[in-house]
Amino acid sequence: MSKGKMYVVSGPSGVGKGTVVKGLLEKYSEIFLSVSATTREKREGEEEGINYYYKGKQEFTDMIEKGEFLEWAKFCENYYGTPKKPVEKMLDAGKDVLLEIEIQGAMEVKKNFPESIFIFIAPPTVNDLLERLKGRGTEPEDVIALRVETAKKELGFAKEYDYIIVNDIVEKTVEDFISIITAERLKTERCIDELEVLK
Amino acid sequence: MSKGKMYVVSGPSGVGKGTVVKGLLEKYSEIFLSVSATTREKREGEEEGINYYYKGKQEFTDMIEKGEFLEWAKFCENYYGTPKKPVEKMLDAGKDVLLEIEIQGAMEVKKNFPESIFIFIAPPTVNDLLERLKGRGTEPEDVIALRVETAKKELGFAKEYDYIIVNDIVEKTVEDFISIITAERLKTERCIDELEVLK
Repeated sequence: MSKGKMYVVSGPSGVGKGTVVKGLLEKYSEIFLSVSATTREKREGEEEGINYYYKGKQEFTDMIEKGEFLEWAKFCENYYGTPKKPVEKMLDAGKDVLLEIEIQGAMEVKKNFPESIFIFIAPPTVNDLLERLKGRGTEPEDVIALRVETAKKELGFAKEYDYIIVNDIVEKTVEDFISIITAERLKTERCIDELEVLK
Repeated sequence: MSKGKMYVVSGPSGVGKGTVVKGLLEKYSEIFLSVSATTREKREGEEEGINYYYKGKQEFTDMIEKGEFLEWAKFCENYYGTPKKPVEKMLDAGKDVLLEIEIQGAMEVKKNFPESIFIFIAPPTVNDLLERLKGRGTEPEDVIALRVETAKKELGFAKEYDYIIVNDIVEKTVEDFISIITAERLKTERCIDELEVLK
């Protein structure tokens, strides 16, 4: 049996990638969503192994030192990372794995696992992204200006990805995503060893 | 505007690729089916430029000499080939082009236009192909034996293609084909220059 493929999806903040991933998993069950580890507190309603694997700071940094993350980052005093072991187990079992991670983490995965498939979710227009980033209009202007600056920088990373999907209508984005996974599975190097008729 | 992509589809005799192409064109209109040229007689109901471009032998061999074919072959005293000009015109206009050709011709295209996308239609099982090759059971056994021999050789070329689709249920095969075209259009190198938001 051939190994599974790792799909790494990211995009600028506010592009709606969480909604796309949710929509994908509802329509396409043959992919395993990787669960991140974090040192931040478990929130009401969250579950270990569903939302996150909750780790102590020492435990997390030990795991970093032992090379047990595919990628990790620190945001606002908390660590976040993708544990390697459950992903590798799924891939070895021939299952595809989906990582929804920040661009910074995706670039780290690309360096270490270039055979993964990198998908960038782009907004239809910059304006569309600005509208989303403004949120409910309650944030001060300088916070919004910083977000916009970051989002523009993030768009510059699109060229590092294998595929770009413009997230205009979410159902269409999900269909495009499924087309990519389907096509990747039909690639000769991926399927030829499994085809009875070609043995 | 970026150039269109050339899709080359073939497979062993009897695999049903004609039906797949017909089904594809019914569901997906954004691809232009290349029309072959031939020296064989026009048959009742056929139309110039729809079924074939009908050429005289001299005209055809002149075109060969001038390098005006993407690929050509001679079967049973008649020439068949894919004229280069209409295909290039479509590709330059940013349209995708579909070539349904024999494996021998596909390998010629691969040598000269390796940037094309090669799709191999495979039968679910060898037995399935045998059943189709036996046809209505009216052919002598040695003719069938030869067909089987050829089909087995043809299956050996699957590894030269970019994608392999197993033609079990034709509707599924058509959907897989559309997924491949969709995914190819979402490839970063194909779409990045067209995306307003990334300019």
